[in-house]
Amino acid sequence: MASPEKIQELKDIANKLRIHSVVQTTAANSGHPTSCASAAEVMSVLFFHVMKYTGDFPRHPSSDRFILSKGHAAPVLYAAWAEAGVIPVDELKNLRKIDSELEGHPTPRQSYIDVATGSLGQGLGVSCGMAYCGKYIDKASYRVYCLMGDGESAEGSVWEAFAFASYYKLDNLVAIIDVNRLGQSEAASLGHDLETYRKRADAFGFNAIIVDGHDVEKLIEAFETAAATKDKPTALILKTFKGKGFPNVEDLDNWHGKPLGPQADAALEAVRALIKNNGPHGIKPLAFVDDAPKVDLSAVKLSEPPNYKLGDKHATRKIYGDALVKLGKSCSRVIALDGDTKNSTFSLTYKKAFNDRYVECFIAEQNLVGVGTGLACRDRNIVFCSTFACFLSRAFDQIRMGAISQTNCNFVGSHAGVSIGEDGPSQMALEDFAMFRSVATSICFYPSDAVSTERAIELAARSKGITFTRTTRPATPVIYSNDEKFEVGKGKLVRSSDKDQVTVVGAGVTLFEALSAYDTLKKEDITIRVIDPFTLKPIDTQLLIDSAAATGGRVVTVEDHYPEGGLGEAVCGALTSVKSSVVVRRLAIPEVARSGPGSVLMDKYGISARAIVEAVKDLLK
Amino acid sequence: MASPEKIQELKDIANKLRIHSVVQTTAANSGHPTSCASAAEVMSVLFFHVMKYTGDFPRHPSSDRFILSKGHAAPVLYAAWAEAGVIPVDELKNLRKIDSELEGHPTPRQSYIDVATGSLGQGLGVSCGMAYCGKYIDKASYRVYCLMGDGESAEGSVWEAFAFASYYKLDNLVAIIDVNRLGQSEAASLGHDLETYRKRADAFGFNAIIVDGHDVEKLIEAFETAAATKDKPTALILKTFKGKGFPNVEDLDNWHGKPLGPQADAALEAVRALIKNNGPHGIKPLAFVDDAPKVDLSAVKLSEPPNYKLGDKHATRKIYGDALVKLGKSCSRVIALDGDTKNSTFSLTYKKAFNDRYVECFIAEQNLVGVGTGLACRDRNIVFCSTFACFLSRAFDQIRMGAISQTNCNFVGSHAGVSIGEDGPSQMALEDFAMFRSVATSICFYPSDAVSTERAIELAARSKGITFTRTTRPATPVIYSNDEKFEVGKGKLVRSSDKDQVTVVGAGVTLFEALSAYDTLKKEDITIRVIDPFTLKPIDTQLLIDSAAATGGRVVTVEDHYPEGGLGEAVCGALTSVKSSVVVRRLAIPEVARSGPGSVLMDKYGISARAIVEAVKDLLK
Repeated sequence: MASPEKIQELKDIANKLRIHSVVQTTAANSGHPTSCASAAEVMSVLFFHVMKYTGDFPRHPSSDRFILSKGHAAPVLYAAWAEAGVIPVDELKNLRKIDSELEGHPTPRQSYIDVATGSLGQGLGVSCGMAYCGKYIDKASYRVYCLMGDGESAEGSVWEAFAFASYYKLDNLVAIIDVNRLGQSEAASLGHDLETYRKRADAFGFNAIIVDGHDVEKLIEAFETAAATKDKPTALILKTFKGKGFPNVEDLDNWHGKPLGPQADAALEAVRALIKNNGPHGIKPLAFVDDAPKVDLSAVKLSEPPNYKLGDKHATRKIYGDALVKLGKSCSRVIALDGDTKNSTFSLTYKKAFNDRYVECFIAEQNLVGVGTGLACRDRNIVFCSTFACFLSRAFDQIRMGAISQTNCNFVGSHAGVSIGEDGPSQMALEDFAMFRSVATSICFYPSDAVSTERAIELAARSKGITFTRTTRPATPVIYSNDEKFEVGKGKLVRSSDKDQVTVVGAGVTLFEALSAYDTLKKEDITIRVIDPFTLKPIDTQLLIDSAAATGGRVVTVEDHYPEGGLGEAVCGALTSVKSSVVVRRLAIPEVARSGPGSVLMDKYGISARAIVEAVKDLLK
Repeated sequence: MASPEKIQELKDIANKLRIHSVVQTTAANSGHPTSCASAAEVMSVLFFHVMKYTGDFPRHPSSDRFILSKGHAAPVLYAAWAEAGVIPVDELKNLRKIDSELEGHPTPRQSYIDVATGSLGQGLGVSCGMAYCGKYIDKASYRVYCLMGDGESAEGSVWEAFAFASYYKLDNLVAIIDVNRLGQSEAASLGHDLETYRKRADAFGFNAIIVDGHDVEKLIEAFETAAATKDKPTALILKTFKGKGFPNVEDLDNWHGKPLGPQADAALEAVRALIKNNGPHGIKPLAFVDDAPKVDLSAVKLSEPPNYKLGDKHATRKIYGDALVKLGKSCSRVIALDGDTKNSTFSLTYKKAFNDRYVECFIAEQNLVGVGTGLACRDRNIVFCSTFACFLSRAFDQIRMGAISQTNCNFVGSHAGVSIGEDGPSQMALEDFAMFRSVATSICFYPSDAVSTERAIELAARSKGITFTRTTRPATPVIYSNDEKFEVGKGKLVRSSDKDQVTVVGAGVTLFEALSAYDTLKKEDITIRVIDPFTLKPIDTQLLIDSAAATGGRVVTVEDHYPEGGLGEAVCGALTSVKSSVVVRRLAIPEVARSGPGSVLMDKYGISARAIVEAVKDLLK
């Protein structure tokens, strides 16, 4: 327990954080001062009594982690870093300005922030990834603190994370819920029913404790209990008041997301009156033990080159597992995650080779992505998350936020398109490229054979930003020699001659339909140029433009995907980027598909060799 | 309680369902017989003792609803409908065939199924919507039963639904978890720890009961308890075994999603031996009370036409609320849902006008979409779900499944793009059109002013399939007269002359940047044609082709969206659908955006009038 003097300092700091929050949001004329006020004491206790870190190197591998899941309370976070000496107090008044790092919600543009928050309910999943890394991979002493709002605990992703944390006994994790009762447009559904929060957290396997969130001494005690709790994570359920300390604002409706305006002066006056020491507080953060190992991710590569025989058939999803093992041999920090589909995606191959570098996330894709993002933070690990491609859509918001978080997390989706066959439309990703292409920072791979799949996975591991690789369920023949070079944004001319009449662009399964169409058409003396783009984003614009020009502007695209946002539109965008006379027939799945044999479905929906032959002939009419 | 004879019949039916499941999946040589076997008794009890329905009209408005959330157990569902006389038993052996309705996972192509399932964890949210409709809108006696797997209870969406159901005291809802212990690739995280499931469901406000899922009498008792439970929903936690009754398969690993193969004969023999009466069972389902009111959704329209003054400024998000009220006046079955953003999206306007037709879903977007889909089922309601556009990405998988479910649910997303300004990238939808355009069955509206917004919302209400409307945070001037006609897929020539040199396509906020660019360029004697597409999907292909042809093939698109999957690529796809010489400059947000004033950001990221002027001049070089 802290001395009475320290406790008074912490109370003073809490009120200074309130003042900073009001000053910031008043200067910006926008923001969430009332959501800051409810969290002032817990932020003070965390930053100036509990957490071990250094202001000189806030993202030090061995320091404690703090995630502000309720990202709209950003001003209180910036205020804490200012009181810790990392941000000049004067800078705070530039909140939300175009030339300030202090964005409306936290992002890693700020050197003391690990991940972007602001889409609610995502912080705890990321925190789980960090805590998992600390306990099982780094085996270090750092701890992870996640501060959530009560409203966001309605997000299911929060409960996915709760379940994960208790399953893996993450006793280095403290989840804190700031129950200030009020949401944006009305009271949160549980109001101040702290006991129900406690019961829920307890049922999900946490040591759940109700605490007066405005009582510094009680908060200190609670964090001490958390530190002493073994084999289970702790949840602190804080009873707080929104706008605490602000006269005519505290605990009242209609004060979410608004500066205090005419109430600001009274708020500042009331809060200042509570402060005993208006000068600098003189508290230094506790030192951490520097016990997180140094890691070097730059060594990652295929331990051996591809070794396949041309024409042999392999499912690229199976090759994914094999490639991952090769990466794992070169770098001990390659971690695979899956959502109970590992025997289908073949991440199981990696688990079998490196059991302690595999994390089972069960059927909870949002948390899968959150944990992956957390594991990848501070460049601790190279992370691959896999599941059926369609189920990655469950985590679109997490992936979107991952891009804002500057994560290098890699995603691999299997079982895409109608070619999966009998399982039917619920299992068919037909919008995965539309989704991943629209993610800022993304690279989208669609390898067609074993050789290109190994290289895609290697390139993904070595890339910055988010990557997505679509793998294929049925086996496809090897078409590239083992020494073929692959680059991001470089496609392959798989068939070409100087008398090609139409350019056909296929990828993955449809590349082989294009090759089959090539053979059929050749017998009729029609030659087509066949392109494998390898990456759908970035797409090889120059290759496409040159090929279209060489084939009279006639282009056919064929994709096992809906017509929007995938290969076809990427090609159209590339071709129209310079003035040219082109026509593109886009073959794609035109409607919700149904169950049936994969090859029958490909023909039924117009992406088979037969359909390509027809489209080519139609263009040549 | 049932008679001993009835109980024996129900036991027999359960085993017949097992036999049908084995026969179906053996014939198909794929599917999930073991996941069917664990649920055989509860399906028998539900379909032949508990549920009130008629085989003559399975989707009767007044009949009980059943949702198989664990959609991979489809064969046991089809088997139950076959035993109920709705499907010929002979048809079962056509499971998963291209010409059979019996798809790999349930879809509403089957006349007795309300929504598609197969992406796990989604059934309970839809069930909540149905139960809400029954209790509060239809005020009818039908009840809703949802059967889930244990693995899928890891999905956060399940807990969003649990919280919703208890908050709204849905005592007409029974959630059933078939805890057969085994997931796809390993045991589910809680194994057979039934007590933890019970504690979780209890903490989330359910009357939670553990039941031996293979004991018909205990199941009957449990459903009687559920029926007698008032003011809270019931959860039945069934202890079951995967592959129950199949020798060398029951409760063993590695039998997920596989036909029984060499074990099939032994399984059939073992199960047949348990059946006392091999003949027809002679049980008729219980009759329901036909107390759901008749509804007619066809009357929906704006009660009064738009009434605005040209040039007056209105935020289209505000107009959304006003338009909804007009729809609500014409049709009592217009229901608005929101996720605690109603004061920002302006669905609050509708709540104020029609409080009993508004459903607050709190911060749980997956469940928001699930409840919306449930409310729209059986054409009971016209549903509009709103939140910030970026947060709809949280529910992409639910929306994807909604398309497969043939839902007519409408989505409205506000606060899109960098134009929202200071809140920063976490709050900016820059991929919403990429997402919604890729949804099968979707129509995507992007109205620019008050008049077009009212018409977009009216068209959305009257459309089949999914619709998405993006509304804008800042106010924009009225540019259309009140009697302007709008159609899906028909754009507007907002500026045109016979000497236009470049076609500029803008939508929403960027349309006004295009108009400003028009004014600037006109002063320099450069005239541009300005197009408002109104719908991004379908896009007005003919108008674009004609305009491009009239302006020398020079086209500029400008969108407050990432470059992929939105307006720009839609235009490129349209223009290349016929042979023509075109060049398209696509102005879009090239990277993760940051905080700052909206207009400053629009200029910084190159989608302002200034950027359009530059692009136009560059094309004319």
